[in-house]
Amino acid sequence: MKGKYPDDSWGLHTDLYQINMVESYWEDGIHDKKAVFEAYFRTQPFGHGYAVFAGLEKIVDYLNNFRFSDSDIQYLREELGYKEDFLHYLQNVRFTGNVRSVVEGEIVFGNEPLLRIEAPLAEAQLVETAILNIINYQTLIATKASRIMQVVGDGEVAMEFGTRRAHEFDAAIWGTRAAYIGGFSSTSNVRAGKLFGIPVSGTHAHAMVQAYHDEYTAFHKYARRHKDCVFLVDTYDTLRSGIPNAIRVAKELGDQINFIGIRLDSGDLAYLSKKAREMLDEAGFPNAKIIASNDLDEHTIMNVKAQGAKIDSWGIGTKLITAYEQPALGAVYKLVSIEENGKMIDTIKISSNPEKVTTPGLKKVYRIINRQNGKSEGDVIALEWENIKEESPLKMFHPVHTYISKYVTNFDAVELHRDIFVDGKQVYEMPHLKQIQNYTKETLDLLWDAYKRILNPSHYPVDLSQACWDNKMANIDMVSKKVMDFSNGLQ
Amino acid sequence: MKGKYPDDSWGLHTDLYQINMVESYWEDGIHDKKAVFEAYFRTQPFGHGYAVFAGLEKIVDYLNNFRFSDSDIQYLREELGYKEDFLHYLQNVRFTGNVRSVVEGEIVFGNEPLLRIEAPLAEAQLVETAILNIINYQTLIATKASRIMQVVGDGEVAMEFGTRRAHEFDAAIWGTRAAYIGGFSSTSNVRAGKLFGIPVSGTHAHAMVQAYHDEYTAFHKYARRHKDCVFLVDTYDTLRSGIPNAIRVAKELGDQINFIGIRLDSGDLAYLSKKAREMLDEAGFPNAKIIASNDLDEHTIMNVKAQGAKIDSWGIGTKLITAYEQPALGAVYKLVSIEENGKMIDTIKISSNPEKVTTPGLKKVYRIINRQNGKSEGDVIALEWENIKEESPLKMFHPVHTYISKYVTNFDAVELHRDIFVDGKQVYEMPHLKQIQNYTKETLDLLWDAYKRILNPSHYPVDLSQACWDNKMANIDMVSKKVMDFSNGLQ
Repeated sequence: MKGKYPDDSWGLHTDLYQINMVESYWEDGIHDKKAVFEAYFRTQPFGHGYAVFAGLEKIVDYLNNFRFSDSDIQYLREELGYKEDFLHYLQNVRFTGNVRSVVEGEIVFGNEPLLRIEAPLAEAQLVETAILNIINYQTLIATKASRIMQVVGDGEVAMEFGTRRAHEFDAAIWGTRAAYIGGFSSTSNVRAGKLFGIPVSGTHAHAMVQAYHDEYTAFHKYARRHKDCVFLVDTYDTLRSGIPNAIRVAKELGDQINFIGIRLDSGDLAYLSKKAREMLDEAGFPNAKIIASNDLDEHTIMNVKAQGAKIDSWGIGTKLITAYEQPALGAVYKLVSIEENGKMIDTIKISSNPEKVTTPGLKKVYRIINRQNGKSEGDVIALEWENIKEESPLKMFHPVHTYISKYVTNFDAVELHRDIFVDGKQVYEMPHLKQIQNYTKETLDLLWDAYKRILNPSHYPVDLSQACWDNKMANIDMVSKKVMDFSNGLQ
Repeated sequence: MKGKYPDDSWGLHTDLYQINMVESYWEDGIHDKKAVFEAYFRTQPFGHGYAVFAGLEKIVDYLNNFRFSDSDIQYLREELGYKEDFLHYLQNVRFTGNVRSVVEGEIVFGNEPLLRIEAPLAEAQLVETAILNIINYQTLIATKASRIMQVVGDGEVAMEFGTRRAHEFDAAIWGTRAAYIGGFSSTSNVRAGKLFGIPVSGTHAHAMVQAYHDEYTAFHKYARRHKDCVFLVDTYDTLRSGIPNAIRVAKELGDQINFIGIRLDSGDLAYLSKKAREMLDEAGFPNAKIIASNDLDEHTIMNVKAQGAKIDSWGIGTKLITAYEQPALGAVYKLVSIEENGKMIDTIKISSNPEKVTTPGLKKVYRIINRQNGKSEGDVIALEWENIKEESPLKMFHPVHTYISKYVTNFDAVELHRDIFVDGKQVYEMPHLKQIQNYTKETLDLLWDAYKRILNPSHYPVDLSQACWDNKMANIDMVSKKVMDFSNGLQ
């Protein structure tokens, strides 16, 4: 903004340490070594039984256009003091690697590789930060939306209203896109409607009632230009003024308008919606809808429903678009394999927190579908060279409590990753957003209801193959030995 | 993105209901009536004793460039069915109003008008959503950063590391700018460094250690190209491998590098930092710094400090950039006055929640500075025509418990709002970011420490002037009477 380098680009949307590491790799001549990184999160957010992947559309756009602009290079030279030789290298960097990923709308779980980047080490490192920035937010919101949809009843709809509380502009538009993937019907954000083709919804605000100083006038004025009318009834007094005025105007205008219904935006939604339903029914508007908003989320919706609320449509803002309950997903991006003398060598990161120990090697994820009932038995993470499809029976064992296992026969093993980029060229055709939303719905049908409860869902099995497990143990042993040898050598 | 309307613009970054209301105003010929809206939040986030305003830079940019693009109009026509007459009007809309606002970095409190828009009703309505989207996030993060700085000690620094967990791209860059306003020293986001001139920091990640399969090699390789070295020591085993290797490399390279220190990114930071301090001191590096990261916030910082942690520098990501503790500020934008027959008439919104009742009329905010000790006695919200400066003694009374009051004499009443736009022209010169950061620091000095505690801070007085209070009561009475009359009329 009006600074020394006024033009913006996404090239520098990365952490400084990525550029510093790349400089060292380049100096050392290993920047073009093939490296494999995987992005994954450790546990599903909100204690939810599953997550919904989103973010690929923007990642593809980002990778297709990945480059440093002239002024990016100028900034790195003038302000950060990088040398010409390295800057010359950076100037020509493009993304030339392979990307395999689950598709948007896929149901995913903790510790599953969502996206796998095989690329020259330097490139894979430079794109890490942006990829995580995208996945972490969009997957979080798609999951939250899908979670909310578990309590929104059949025949009811959820509308995304959160722009004003979103974390800046991008979150508003990409968040509402993610909400649509998760099952929301519409957005209030007109820009998101234009960019992504999401249906937009909205009628009027309290300000309009205030501008006309009374509801009767405001509703009439609104109706002059808009046939579809939803009147907001809580500017002064919902039951004594708002609803009676809405009914009066609807009666006066009759067929001149399509009186869709009313919106409640404050007060006790359970009580008010029941009273509103009575008043609308008595007035001869049994089909008028009741739309509710005001800091709603899956918990408030479930609660007011338990009290018999009569609400047809839910406008959901803050709690969805900020993922208020848990506003970060925590996906990470870890090096799992790197080229050494023409061969790929697996790598591991050890931690005193067991869940932070990485799983080495190139991996695939299979969803194991029981052919008899069409439901999923769980997912299996296997090494690249394995062919899970041909194992029968397939032994699945718990990744922590390994002594717990089951054998599965008569199954389909569906691989979740698709090729997105091959040698830096996009090979995957992006589906339309509506298709993605439909896919989410279909793929959710593979899950038993036990995984979809918003409180204490059953734990969906995500298991390592025997080979994957053995490889991890071997890597841990190797590193432990190396640390011990080094430590002994110091004494 | 590759949709039917590929070009993006900020014109449509608004809620649909704004456009629908404007259509009705325009149809009714009242779109150019002068209206005054005020933006404010009701309570400070995180239970904090104050908030730090941020967002004006982007708001100014947004308002200066506010317009609907050709493809925005095309979208509204083709997809949403707006008619040509109204589209013709929209095509020519620009922001022509006045804006008064507190400056970025200002210390602000609940219920204070932060920003006041006086503009033709239609324009003021169209820009609401974007303005709230900006203020809500940036003020939230500036406040969180300032709150964290209350526990970061003198001589210590805080660095913003959160891009990967931010809510999409805009949040990463605007959030880190807000963090800098709140007192952070640097960012890891290189793009934010370029756009805003924020110092950037970062060295290397676990991936680099994994890429070289051991710390000794990785640290040496890093040092070949980077004189300033911070080594990350927790890839395999912090005390048995990471720190000993860092010390070994630092000794071997001696003056060839500037061994700044080490970074701890997992494990028990209190314990590890104390051990690290001992090891570094014993090895002859008493000036080497210990940098800590790993889901830090003001609470974890205070806790590890209470246990005697030896940490010089704090890298803070997720908990800051998402405002994890409370990820939404909840600022609103309310109509307080509107032109009727050439005169301004105040407006009010009533609610059964007392804190949601708006305060009518054009208002100013004064900070009352005690001339004897230079500290602030509180803020007074007064009507536009009042001259608080000349009242002596000034009676300040509690805005809820109005019977609690105090008299202040020998004070300076400093008005917090500045003119930003006059008749649609920017009249305020944007300060440099460093100046804003300095201003925050200076203006915080006006506050007693009692307001700066992170737990149970004292409640800073924000009072209404007598005239402002009387005006609010009169408006409430008027509306109550209108509702009663209407309601009686129905029976």
